[in-house]
Amino acid sequence: MVRTGGGSTPTGPTLAVVAREAGVSVPTASKVVNGREDVAPETRRRVTEALDRLGYVRRPRFDASKAPGLVDLIVHSLDNSWSGAVLHGVEEAAHDAGLEVVVSAGLTRTRGGRPERGWLDKLTTRGSAGVLFNLAELTPSQYAWLDQHHIPFVMIDPVLEPPPGVVSVGAANWQGGVTAAEHLLGLGHERIAVIAGYRRKMCSSARVAGYRSVLVSAGVRLRPEYVRYGSFDETVAYRRMLELLELPEPPTAVFVCSDKMALGVYRALAERELRVPEDVSVVGFDDLPESRWVSPALTTVRQPLSEMAGAAVGLLVRLMGGERPEGTRMELSTRLVVRGSTGAPGLGA
Amino acid sequence: MVRTGGGSTPTGPTLAVVAREAGVSVPTASKVVNGREDVAPETRRRVTEALDRLGYVRRPRFDASKAPGLVDLIVHSLDNSWSGAVLHGVEEAAHDAGLEVVVSAGLTRTRGGRPERGWLDKLTTRGSAGVLFNLAELTPSQYAWLDQHHIPFVMIDPVLEPPPGVVSVGAANWQGGVTAAEHLLGLGHERIAVIAGYRRKMCSSARVAGYRSVLVSAGVRLRPEYVRYGSFDETVAYRRMLELLELPEPPTAVFVCSDKMALGVYRALAERELRVPEDVSVVGFDDLPESRWVSPALTTVRQPLSEMAGAAVGLLVRLMGGERPEGTRMELSTRLVVRGSTGAPGLGA
Repeated sequence: MVRTGGGSTPTGPTLAVVAREAGVSVPTASKVVNGREDVAPETRRRVTEALDRLGYVRRPRFDASKAPGLVDLIVHSLDNSWSGAVLHGVEEAAHDAGLEVVVSAGLTRTRGGRPERGWLDKLTTRGSAGVLFNLAELTPSQYAWLDQHHIPFVMIDPVLEPPPGVVSVGAANWQGGVTAAEHLLGLGHERIAVIAGYRRKMCSSARVAGYRSVLVSAGVRLRPEYVRYGSFDETVAYRRMLELLELPEPPTAVFVCSDKMALGVYRALAERELRVPEDVSVVGFDDLPESRWVSPALTTVRQPLSEMAGAAVGLLVRLMGGERPEGTRMELSTRLVVRGSTGAPGLGA
Repeated sequence: MVRTGGGSTPTGPTLAVVAREAGVSVPTASKVVNGREDVAPETRRRVTEALDRLGYVRRPRFDASKAPGLVDLIVHSLDNSWSGAVLHGVEEAAHDAGLEVVVSAGLTRTRGGRPERGWLDKLTTRGSAGVLFNLAELTPSQYAWLDQHHIPFVMIDPVLEPPPGVVSVGAANWQGGVTAAEHLLGLGHERIAVIAGYRRKMCSSARVAGYRSVLVSAGVRLRPEYVRYGSFDETVAYRRMLELLELPEPPTAVFVCSDKMALGVYRALAERELRVPEDVSVVGFDDLPESRWVSPALTTVRQPLSEMAGAAVGLLVRLMGGERPEGTRMELSTRLVVRGSTGAPGLGA
């Protein structure tokens, strides 16, 4: 093996050099290399000779017939551990199914402020074998487009309830809210607040509903001022926690609908010199790696993100094979991971 | 748009139904659908009629001529924020270059304990347009394979010094070590330890060398017992920190070669009831999101991972175009991000 300084590039000349040698344009040389018919015989001969003389090495070409199926994973953004866990699960399951994964962060990419629609064109032009959407919120026309082009797809944790017939995988959010509230109730808390994400989002409303149902069953008074919506943003959660602390009867425990939001809650409590869990207990949601980094480590409701992603691949493979799953919504169970952020109320008194 | 309960799958029958209707096998029906020649005319007619009668909707096929180039990103594992940052940068730069990214976590996948070699076969069979390796450690035969198959590739933060001619992108690790040591020296520390990753790894040794050179220039005595190697594992870093604390003269500051390892250092210090930064100052390396979650937030040397990934895509595109970059190693500068984990020595006394 001889390397000539250019890493793993072919050691021969570029097509531009071949074209110059043959006295033709680069596109013409390219046509000859790629076996196209529309080249005059004399031109073809000159190019072929130049190719041989210069020792041009033909680059490998994509051979679709030999390729395993390519499925697309489209995510909001890649730079976070949520996407990492999903991608991990998708890649592993896809590999086991003999598929490869093309990853795009296309949904939120904007050009000049307008969301780019290029990803749909790409899927349809390339003829994607199937698509997984992570945390996506598709418009009716995007759903229609996918249907028209017969591209099978599965939603992983869709933001809004998808239209009937759309296959999706999510966590058992309602059950997660139940688990969190039961844990806090079991520790002796009655003043339990909840800081949720967007009100209209499926996952938020299901988690809040789970929390409510536990309190109602236990005969604990529901206080509307204890339920705060916002976004999944850390700073918004920080502000909601400050609002809760200004109530005449502030909560002794708070269920926060994501680990990331819990960081904002920690910050608000630290600013008011309140300790976790002595003064206020905190339960998160997700069990991202971050929940082990904070101090105290966060008690949280674990979403099995990688497993959800793997299940989505399984459903997509079935759709790709022409099957139609009987149910269109699969929910994987959540479980409570108890760490240091929860304890009995009144410890700090 | 009519949905029939199966999400976005074609609303027509599956190929199995068509085959049954035509009285042929599924592979035979598939041959007809895919335009293959080796089918008897009468059989072809029966299948075609069944296709029409049942309203079979042909699934889109991958059309390589219409596809943008597909480049491969091969990573060790996906389930961490390091990979997330790299993937984010790769995807964005690839998108801008009109390329799509196939992601595999192939390098460390094992079957029955032996590393799987399938990823190389996949790249060569499919004719990958180019490959990015993240944190990879290729064997000489793997380098030779890539060369033989004329697959251009670029290494992102290679574990070991790659062979001559291989193009790679990394952080300015030596400079990072300099920055960390200068910061601690500037705060008044002289007993500065370093907990590095694997001794033989390029990034570890460069960071330690940067640290050493600052101490030497400043006339501070180098103590061999203050330099500890291990792995990039949090638990190993925890043990190294405990060892340092058992020295007759323990350090007042420690430069840890990754943010993740810094978590182990925090744990060791907490166990010995030492405070950060009052008793011991800590500087990390990477500036992963985690460094903002720990308490106190970690002063760290920022590696521009997404920018490194983007630069790697740029180099790969040039290699794919037949160019040979003059230099084969690109280093992007690091910078110190000062947070709460560093302070003057002796504050805790």
